[in-house]
Amino acid sequence: MAKEIPYKIFLDESEMPTSWYNVRADMKNKPAPLLNPGTHEPMKAEELEGVFCSELVKQELDNDTRFFEIPGEIRDFYKMYRPSPVVRAYYLEKKLGTPAHIYYKFEGNNTSGSHKLNSAIAQAYYAKKQGLTGVTTETGAGQWGTALSMACSYFDLDCKVYMVKCSYEQKPFRREVMRTYGGSVTPSPSNTTNVGRKILAEHPDTTGSLGCAISEAVEVAVSTPGYRYVLGSVLNQVLLHQSVIGLEAKAALEKYDVKPDIIIGCAGGGSNLGGLIAPFMGEKLRGEADYRFIAVEPASCPSLTRGKYAYDFCDTGMVCPLAKMYTLGCDFIPSANHAGGLRYHGMSSVLSQLYDDGLMEARSVKQTEVFEAAEFFARAEGILPAPESSHAIRAAIDEALKCKETGEEKNILFGLTGTGYFDLVAYEKFHEGEMNDYIPTDEELAMYAAKLPKI
Amino acid sequence: MAKEIPYKIFLDESEMPTSWYNVRADMKNKPAPLLNPGTHEPMKAEELEGVFCSELVKQELDNDTRFFEIPGEIRDFYKMYRPSPVVRAYYLEKKLGTPAHIYYKFEGNNTSGSHKLNSAIAQAYYAKKQGLTGVTTETGAGQWGTALSMACSYFDLDCKVYMVKCSYEQKPFRREVMRTYGGSVTPSPSNTTNVGRKILAEHPDTTGSLGCAISEAVEVAVSTPGYRYVLGSVLNQVLLHQSVIGLEAKAALEKYDVKPDIIIGCAGGGSNLGGLIAPFMGEKLRGEADYRFIAVEPASCPSLTRGKYAYDFCDTGMVCPLAKMYTLGCDFIPSANHAGGLRYHGMSSVLSQLYDDGLMEARSVKQTEVFEAAEFFARAEGILPAPESSHAIRAAIDEALKCKETGEEKNILFGLTGTGYFDLVAYEKFHEGEMNDYIPTDEELAMYAAKLPKI
Repeated sequence: MAKEIPYKIFLDESEMPTSWYNVRADMKNKPAPLLNPGTHEPMKAEELEGVFCSELVKQELDNDTRFFEIPGEIRDFYKMYRPSPVVRAYYLEKKLGTPAHIYYKFEGNNTSGSHKLNSAIAQAYYAKKQGLTGVTTETGAGQWGTALSMACSYFDLDCKVYMVKCSYEQKPFRREVMRTYGGSVTPSPSNTTNVGRKILAEHPDTTGSLGCAISEAVEVAVSTPGYRYVLGSVLNQVLLHQSVIGLEAKAALEKYDVKPDIIIGCAGGGSNLGGLIAPFMGEKLRGEADYRFIAVEPASCPSLTRGKYAYDFCDTGMVCPLAKMYTLGCDFIPSANHAGGLRYHGMSSVLSQLYDDGLMEARSVKQTEVFEAAEFFARAEGILPAPESSHAIRAAIDEALKCKETGEEKNILFGLTGTGYFDLVAYEKFHEGEMNDYIPTDEELAMYAAKLPKI
Repeated sequence: MAKEIPYKIFLDESEMPTSWYNVRADMKNKPAPLLNPGTHEPMKAEELEGVFCSELVKQELDNDTRFFEIPGEIRDFYKMYRPSPVVRAYYLEKKLGTPAHIYYKFEGNNTSGSHKLNSAIAQAYYAKKQGLTGVTTETGAGQWGTALSMACSYFDLDCKVYMVKCSYEQKPFRREVMRTYGGSVTPSPSNTTNVGRKILAEHPDTTGSLGCAISEAVEVAVSTPGYRYVLGSVLNQVLLHQSVIGLEAKAALEKYDVKPDIIIGCAGGGSNLGGLIAPFMGEKLRGEADYRFIAVEPASCPSLTRGKYAYDFCDTGMVCPLAKMYTLGCDFIPSANHAGGLRYHGMSSVLSQLYDDGLMEARSVKQTEVFEAAEFFARAEGILPAPESSHAIRAAIDEALKCKETGEEKNILFGLTGTGYFDLVAYEKFHEGEMNDYIPTDEELAMYAAKLPKI
């Protein structure tokens, strides 16, 4: 008889992963290299080391090493909030009346409120190890900035966060958490950088964008001695660190002989999705098992489902290397009405390649449907989900309802990346009926696509 | 060799308590009975049943039954967010350089953000079982109202929350979470009740108080068919439900043969402290073991340390029964500058009796010292604590520092009742240096004490 599955499956601390898994090692078609924006030649390690920590550059460029040992100091920190549980969504299943078995890996039980801490602590560790004094970064909704502030506080590093101006103004509480951990937060665009001053001169009323905040953070990093820039998503190194999510999830499910049929994650830059699916995708790539993977993105920022697979800039200021990815164009900014996060114009090169190779599906969902799913989930499972995570909830519910029609007992695993305690302005909009579902037109997207660099 | 103690000790779901423990059964001096405010006779069950659910009245009045079985439906709900971990505060110990071993029982990993859910679900369950259609309550900081909204949503009960007006205005996000769970929230005092209209007529600019919100909620409960009133602290029944905290903590520590020397909890109305210490106090009352218990309260609302042990009203409108407790007088309201929660004028009758019998210590702490401890803890342990919980953190740190001086390896256990995600206005005040330590004068306290009913 199969073991009864508890509501929450926890690993013991002794069962926590000791290495990160690098899915690139098992990819036949490797993700395309970063290019120097001037020469269009692949970026060399020494070029990247002006921006990123040396050890992280190695991780970024290494497409062959399958496992990277997690340093002891990072594993110690992980014990502060990990292992995170895999939750069997018994209440949700019952409320849906589905024969499907739904599981979610819950990454929200920490003060940053999301999975972002997994990579933040790694990046802070390597910065400290290199003898740096501080790091710079950007943050949109604030999850990444909070995570990095916590990580820097732990290693006694200075942390300068450029926060997209509209978020800075709408989310004073996020700012305050970062301050509690000693992070300094500047609304972007700002007068503290050349690129910020240029953007402000051209668009004095701009409310900012992720791409612009990245440009500012990079400028400060490369022009301040002892500083480097760190990024919370998109990059190969980030997906590597986030593989801890998938490794833990797989180990927890294997304890109960559960093999997921469908694995679902929300996708902005790809950090959570890439981390969650990594070890499962590895099995698929090696022909050892098969899984369906579904990336879920907002209909208002549909890089995988409606973008181009092309080289593009990672930032608005075009100071970063070029990355080959599914992209809407580096000037694309989702509608101001969009409240669901996942606003980045591009997508991780790893995930873009896997998607292009037909190894993963993608779908986009409208934000009112996302918030309906969020509220339904909150009432069923007792957790107020982040809007980002709720994209995955939407798709998981839709798949579970299909099972209800067909009577199939599928195992569905999704990533619950975070909590929505700092997103209640968005919930309020939803409750007040002030949320709409603006979707970019084909003409709009074509206009941005036409501006992609010709490579 | 002793087993190595992990960072987080989780019980298995199968090890969760199946009964609540009623500490009154082991008290030689029972807590004084509630009195009818008109006759000054002990309240009979039938009198209380107009206000409270029948099953809860039984629990309230039963000083003899040692264990109450937790109904299966409640145990199912508990699995949504329990068992909660006992955390060994390795990072905090290291940062303090103390030989003490510090443990905390963390009750904040649920959407209500605190331990309040433990009693909310029990009270909602009994209301549903009795065939009621809804319940009313008051909330100050919003933790209890959120917990009750979640519980009522689960059992499909209507939930009317009277929220202290200043909190209602300062904490729109709390309101929004309650709405997500279908709770209706009214700022108190309001025009929806006689007592609210009376208070508004006399004090049109009042920002409200807990005592006033209680009066409104009770009035609505007794005048609406199918409704009863529920309360999140102070009452015997609440302490009974909250014993799940102490029972889990004790079971978790016993797995590693750890016996706490000192047990510390913050004390407002007493729900957390009473629940945490219950099974340990039981051992002490039965002469099986000895522990030091420390109740920590705000210097600005010092009911145990500077109040009178006397009969008093539980609410401002004087519609509730009289309870014998350590009290500052039912009109006492802490300084507007006070941001640390725990604002209730009285203290649970059970805890008051235990304190009066010398079985428990109490101390008061100033709020700036509380927030210093909160930030120190947040940086060490990665959890942003609620201001309420931070009173216990302050005392735990102080005790650990004493151990540093004496070299004693004491085991300190404290209750980390909740998270501070909705308290960032208070953190901001602290960071901006806008927080002061107003402490009521002896004259002020004497003025309120003089108004205590003569019984």
